[in-house]
Amino acid sequence: MSAGIRVGVYGASGYAGQDLVELLRHHPHVSLVFATSDTYAGDAVAGTDLVYIPHEQADLSAVDAVFLALPHKASAPVAARALAHNVKVIDLSADFRLNTADAYQQWYGVEHPHPELLPVPYGLPEIHRDELSNLNLVAVPGCYPTTTLLGLYPLLKGDALAPQAPIIVDAKSGVSGAGRSPKPNTHFVEVFGNLAPYSAGRVHRHVGEMEQEIGKLMPDCGSLIFVPHLLPVDRGLMASIYVTLNGAITADDAQALYEETYANEPLVDVLPVGQQATLRHVVRKNNCAISLTPVSPQHLHITSVTDNLRKGAAGQAVQNFNLMFGFAETTALL
Amino acid sequence: MSAGIRVGVYGASGYAGQDLVELLRHHPHVSLVFATSDTYAGDAVAGTDLVYIPHEQADLSAVDAVFLALPHKASAPVAARALAHNVKVIDLSADFRLNTADAYQQWYGVEHPHPELLPVPYGLPEIHRDELSNLNLVAVPGCYPTTTLLGLYPLLKGDALAPQAPIIVDAKSGVSGAGRSPKPNTHFVEVFGNLAPYSAGRVHRHVGEMEQEIGKLMPDCGSLIFVPHLLPVDRGLMASIYVTLNGAITADDAQALYEETYANEPLVDVLPVGQQATLRHVVRKNNCAISLTPVSPQHLHITSVTDNLRKGAAGQAVQNFNLMFGFAETTALL
Amino acid sequence: MSAGIRVGVYGASGYAGQDLVELLRHHPHVSLVFATSDTYAGDAVAGTDLVYIPHEQADLSAVDAVFLALPHKASAPVAARALAHNVKVIDLSADFRLNTADAYQQWYGVEHPHPELLPVPYGLPEIHRDELSNLNLVAVPGCYPTTTLLGLYPLLKGDALAPQAPIIVDAKSGVSGAGRSPKPNTHFVEVFGNLAPYSAGRVHRHVGEMEQEIGKLMPDCGSLIFVPHLLPVDRGLMASIYVTLNGAITADDAQALYEETYANEPLVDVLPVGQQATLRHVVRKNNCAISLTPVSPQHLHITSVTDNLRKGAAGQAVQNFNLMFGFAETTALL
Amino acid sequence: MSAGIRVGVYGASGYAGQDLVELLRHHPHVSLVFATSDTYAGDAVAGTDLVYIPHEQADLSAVDAVFLALPHKASAPVAARALAHNVKVIDLSADFRLNTADAYQQWYGVEHPHPELLPVPYGLPEIHRDELSNLNLVAVPGCYPTTTLLGLYPLLKGDALAPQAPIIVDAKSGVSGAGRSPKPNTHFVEVFGNLAPYSAGRVHRHVGEMEQEIGKLMPDCGSLIFVPHLLPVDRGLMASIYVTLNGAITADDAQALYEETYANEPLVDVLPVGQQATLRHVVRKNNCAISLTPVSPQHLHITSVTDNLRKGAAGQAVQNFNLMFGFAETTALL
Repeated sequence: MSAGIRVGVYGASGYAGQDLVELLRHHPHVSLVFATSDTYAGDAVAGTDLVYIPHEQADLSAVDAVFLALPHKASAPVAARALAHNVKVIDLSADFRLNTADAYQQWYGVEHPHPELLPVPYGLPEIHRDELSNLNLVAVPGCYPTTTLLGLYPLLKGDALAPQAPIIVDAKSGVSGAGRSPKPNTHFVEVFGNLAPYSAGRVHRHVGEMEQEIGKLMPDCGSLIFVPHLLPVDRGLMASIYVTLNGAITADDAQALYEETYANEPLVDVLPVGQQATLRHVVRKNNCAISLTPVSPQHLHITSVTDNLRKGAAGQAVQNFNLMFGFAETTALL
Repeated sequence: MSAGIRVGVYGASGYAGQDLVELLRHHPHVSLVFATSDTYAGDAVAGTDLVYIPHEQADLSAVDAVFLALPHKASAPVAARALAHNVKVIDLSADFRLNTADAYQQWYGVEHPHPELLPVPYGLPEIHRDELSNLNLVAVPGCYPTTTLLGLYPLLKGDALAPQAPIIVDAKSGVSGAGRSPKPNTHFVEVFGNLAPYSAGRVHRHVGEMEQEIGKLMPDCGSLIFVPHLLPVDRGLMASIYVTLNGAITADDAQALYEETYANEPLVDVLPVGQQATLRHVVRKNNCAISLTPVSPQHLHITSVTDNLRKGAAGQAVQNFNLMFGFAETTALL
Repeated sequence: MSAGIRVGVYGASGYAGQDLVELLRHHPHVSLVFATSDTYAGDAVAGTDLVYIPHEQADLSAVDAVFLALPHKASAPVAARALAHNVKVIDLSADFRLNTADAYQQWYGVEHPHPELLPVPYGLPEIHRDELSNLNLVAVPGCYPTTTLLGLYPLLKGDALAPQAPIIVDAKSGVSGAGRSPKPNTHFVEVFGNLAPYSAGRVHRHVGEMEQEIGKLMPDCGSLIFVPHLLPVDRGLMASIYVTLNGAITADDAQALYEETYANEPLVDVLPVGQQATLRHVVRKNNCAISLTPVSPQHLHITSVTDNLRKGAAGQAVQNFNLMFGFAETTALL
Repeated sequence: MSAGIRVGVYGASGYAGQDLVELLRHHPHVSLVFATSDTYAGDAVAGTDLVYIPHEQADLSAVDAVFLALPHKASAPVAARALAHNVKVIDLSADFRLNTADAYQQWYGVEHPHPELLPVPYGLPEIHRDELSNLNLVAVPGCYPTTTLLGLYPLLKGDALAPQAPIIVDAKSGVSGAGRSPKPNTHFVEVFGNLAPYSAGRVHRHVGEMEQEIGKLMPDCGSLIFVPHLLPVDRGLMASIYVTLNGAITADDAQALYEETYANEPLVDVLPVGQQATLRHVVRKNNCAISLTPVSPQHLHITSVTDNLRKGAAGQAVQNFNLMFGFAETTALL
């Protein structure tokens, strides 16, 4: 690992950060230089010879690229500083996913720390691959948006959805999606044996991100009804999507459309007719799996699953890194 | 417990059967006479002085009522025999839930064993209480139908749903709903950390039962899109329901309608605005909990939860028993 | 519930406190007057018409008895105040379990807040029933001590253990034993799929309590080697005990000794030869279950299990309350 | 993968078999030729282009080596047939772990199918590496023996244990250790929230295997008291070991002995003083982790953990394969 791109990871002790380190230490073209954590500074970084250092002690002059697995609002200033050092940035926070400072203000309730950097390319390679090579800064999509958008993309680009009809997404996420800081709702006793909806309707912050991306592909799309649930598992995310078709294709034809759309995508698996996508298909893997069930001539049910820490975070970040530096896109991901 | 109604339980070693025994042994007006199980015959029945006896050895002349927690098709002949002995029957199987032999043939793929007994009153007291007193035979609803129908009832009876608009039910059930016989899909290793849809669309047998009951309340209702999932918990069931309103009420008004409808129902809890129903509200209890979220002026999201073995099976069976014999409806259930 | 003993619960929002409220609200001779919680003050107390009030607002003149489910050191001052108001005290904290202020200083590292109240009777009725009636203050044993002592008692009182031979206790506890405050080690993601020893050897604070009680029954007993583990379940505690016999009885005779010792104990079940005690035998019940396996002529393996929140805390507290007030000992516990 | 050793896996659909396939498909010197399963014949083998074929259809002339993940008694005949075809055999069953046909008869209750092949080298490289190169047949140790023996080895070879003192092993295993065939005790509902001892004392079949290996290193060792438990996790195994030292070293010195013994072992991690080995250290990894706690001057507590499907089965099988063919021992295992 001595040669290769010199990389640093900010926020490396969080759950996405841990998976990033795990993926990067097996990446043949990466040399991991530092891993930051204010909370766990001084502790060993599992699987490496490093110890976590505080964010402030990271030496930007020692790296070619940084991954930022930091909270929103904390991430943008670090990104700006890194770019000023000519260090490329793969940002896993929400800071650069929305294209405008207004949208950021609306969904996150605070002023954008660096509006001059907006808009930033949205790092969902299966949809935006053309815009993702040779970048200095990329916004890695959220876990719910990644899973939902990949589940909808063939219909959106194929002009197959009824205009103005709502898209219903009943989503379920493992607890790692809630972060590593202990909170009452992530206490083992509260989660064990339970299932709980939260941020139901149109209030979860990922709704803004999803509608932005849906709108680019289908401007007259109906509103997104999004109900996430906290699932008693550590990792894995399922988006159960219910859509109304416009008649351009029947629900029965959808299978072919999905298979064709993703035929050359190594990280998206369209399951054969009759099989249902489950968390087991994706947990600890870097792919998205999708299954389709026609439920009426004009209604389709789509199950899209990812590991929220992999294709929903660290895996997709590495996929973007690979595109950024011109490596094979799936390096270290299969 | 010496006095009271003399009761027998068929199929008492299954998960619903075990909960039945647990509830009945605390029932002040019940004397439990026998508990049958072909698989566990000879074993002690937990919490009682009984041992399981084979179905065939049960003495119908020794009881006033029987609960049948048997598989469909096996249950109807036992019911017929019990009725012939003037023994009242609370049937937890699917054999008497559908009103016609044709519907039974359609959804269960076999001829009805005792069509002359059809139709049988459908034992969902919150909807059909008037028809449930003084009966000799009652059909206890399925777990998914109970939870879904209670979640929809105020809208159905209030003429509030848009005609022909599909009703979407994304449902999740604990593994006890799949029965106690070991099967590959109930192996601990397969379920642990997983979430899996099954029988998606309109193929689950409970769809027929739900549409029958919905149709009585709203003949021009749209079709039911029903996707159940196997959840990595032992018990608990959530129906996440998405409906389109007809404008008679707004989504914001729905809360008042639900609170009013269930104001005097001791076993249905409508949660205050802003709280979401979770499995924790109902597991090992005999109630149904419901929460509402307006998601657009004309769309409403409803979360309805029960313990699949209690309000979804044994608890509701005892509720029907209480009605049948004129006891206070919630005896042994609070 | 209007009549009966007027009772208050301090620390009612913790896991033991919640179980206390659940047991007390079904107790036929109890009227629950207040439930305190500084953290959840203002929230509804599930299953009751009360809301949590801050500890300081509790009115001691309105009650006949209080249960203290408070942290050690915080509990003793409340106990002293209650006693001064002629209110009887059932204390679930560690403050009164050790008989001397010195021992308290040794194991808890702080000065005892009210040494003048020591010693206090140790509320393990199966061992100390004679000392437990008509008290004003009782110390409810810890969960590990209860389970371990009940598992050892017949051998200790029967003079059956080899002097100076160590007693090995490999213990496993559900996560509720670690309390409700969120901590890194109780985060769902950290516990899920894991098993972790902690406080191994002779450092866990319950060692002092266990050795004190063992020493009263067998002064020349060997030291206690105690290794607790955090188990990925919400509740339940298993003490796996390995002992060396002195030859007074053989391991094969032990079964008879245990059956005889506990023959009239409604809350201790000695399982038949060949059955192993599991968490399933005790979770959400108020009993202790014990199984024995002779593993050599002079070595015996004992599995003792309880629900750490019931016989290990709230259930045993109510058992002591019943003794204190002269009610049937198992009232509200079967 | 076109070049390299041509390998077949028998019993590839079981849990150990699945992990074998997963490891072998990433092995740079292996070409996976077939994977057998009578139960799942015709199904796709995840991550490969193969489908499972019935055992009988496997072509032994097409491979250089086979892994046998078959039940005991079924495995030996396949091994004999493979050897007759000059195919090397890595056997994961119990058929060749015991050195004599008598011992096999004693512990497995049946006649050994191929006594002429006994004794077979015992494939625990950290103890027997010298005997494991250039073999045609190797017996991969069981999961409990691997974990227990690695936890004891430094003391056994260092002559540090008190003669005749019993060795106590309180062990806990994830459910995959019970195999993939659905059985009542592996039903999700039975395991969830439970912990259950089984085969307590000296009756588990692995006791024979462990005592055989212990006896080679320390002929006057005391008997093994072994109590395994079924743990509500999918994978992971912990052996909690309690031993009596003979005074050659103190418990406090043990740490240095362990660190020295395993200094050059890439697949055994001795944790620093004060850290406890947990399942998290080993799950989905191919290592064993060990922590030590001195609990009295002459008693030591050892926690040894492995993934029962990796170092306890498939990982160790590949380690033996690497030794057999002269590859770096940890190829595909780090």
